[in-house]
Amino acid sequence: MRIGILGTGVVGTTLGTGFVRSGHEVRLGSRTSGNEKAGQWAAEVGAGASTGTFAEAAEFGGVVVNATGGLVSIEALTAAGQQNLAGKPLLDVANPLDFSGGFPPRIVQDDGRSLAEAIQATFPEARVVKTLNTMTAAVMADPRSLPSDHSVFLAGDDVDAKQVATTLLGSLGWAPDEIVDVGGLASARGLELYLPLWLSLMGSLGSATFNIQVVRG
Amino acid sequence: MRIGILGTGVVGTTLGTGFVRSGHEVRLGSRTSGNEKAGQWAAEVGAGASTGTFAEAAEFGGVVVNATGGLVSIEALTAAGQQNLAGKPLLDVANPLDFSGGFPPRIVQDDGRSLAEAIQATFPEARVVKTLNTMTAAVMADPRSLPSDHSVFLAGDDVDAKQVATTLLGSLGWAPDEIVDVGGLASARGLELYLPLWLSLMGSLGSATFNIQVVRG
Repeated sequence: MRIGILGTGVVGTTLGTGFVRSGHEVRLGSRTSGNEKAGQWAAEVGAGASTGTFAEAAEFGGVVVNATGGLVSIEALTAAGQQNLAGKPLLDVANPLDFSGGFPPRIVQDDGRSLAEAIQATFPEARVVKTLNTMTAAVMADPRSLPSDHSVFLAGDDVDAKQVATTLLGSLGWAPDEIVDVGGLASARGLELYLPLWLSLMGSLGSATFNIQVVRG
Repeated sequence: MRIGILGTGVVGTTLGTGFVRSGHEVRLGSRTSGNEKAGQWAAEVGAGASTGTFAEAAEFGGVVVNATGGLVSIEALTAAGQQNLAGKPLLDVANPLDFSGGFPPRIVQDDGRSLAEAIQATFPEARVVKTLNTMTAAVMADPRSLPSDHSVFLAGDDVDAKQVATTLLGSLGWAPDEIVDVGGLASARGLELYLPLWLSLMGSLGSATFNIQVVRG
């Protein structure tokens, strides 16, 4: 599958590498063309990896991944272009963390609405799925690096887009029963508001290499 | 151990039963004496169970458990009396859920501060530990009712009070490595903000009988 990833940070590059190693073609998009981090990434990953602007990455992808910072995601997606997102599954893995008051950051949900819902409202023709935002990048891209089963969540209003997301997660190594559909896109609120607990856990465990598993009765 | 539980709802009575069956003495406190639900509970549980006002329950306990609704907890603890809380571990299991806008409820954290921190600020001589608020009452009181290991969190600034909480959790059947200390009381923010995800999971799983386990790398 062709995947356009917006964002050249740790999340974008780590997911990009994971997707290329799973047999997909990935174009990593940045604000301006000729981004140094993106170029280094493409050189390291080799065949299947390419770079471009946000718009070029989004146009390339049959699926688009928002891996930009949560506070600039709407701006980055606007640069990507409504027409390059229309009709496509848009996997939103970003978290709207505000570090302006120091650490720990606060989660920004204007009017109690999640970033994912704000993206969907701004780009109504995209098919937004919130996923993967509840863990560190290395675990997103290589779930089998943890010693036992754990969970990844999906929230979205478009059933077909969630099915595409499930397929992509499977190609990264996520088992079917590890993928937990938590409902419509409004459930992205809980996925984003989980971040403060994640940050506390990272602090107390002394590592970001962990995740949670849903244990059913 | 003598435990005073404030609140006669499902959480208070279920935890109360669990603690009595674990060999503790429990006094269940309510706003007014002669509360019918509390009386029924005490009659069912038998020896080790008693009832009283919030103040009588708090006075009775060497440990106090806040199992009142999160939006009325400060009022209930005020009725319990600063002098009956002073120096005691206060296990806050409440969630500040606001159902005034319908379902799903919103989590209320004034100025980004958790209910547990607000309680600590209002009752500075109590030794507040946030715990058990991240699951349904039946799982709190009987963790072995789930088929595999799962996690319960502790947040608090008083190390000795967290040790008392650990001992009490152990008496309910929580294994030492299931009890995860997430740090100081500010980490209660994440424990309370987890509730929207919990509510989404309850909806998608069709059951409240579940919990999460922390899986470490």
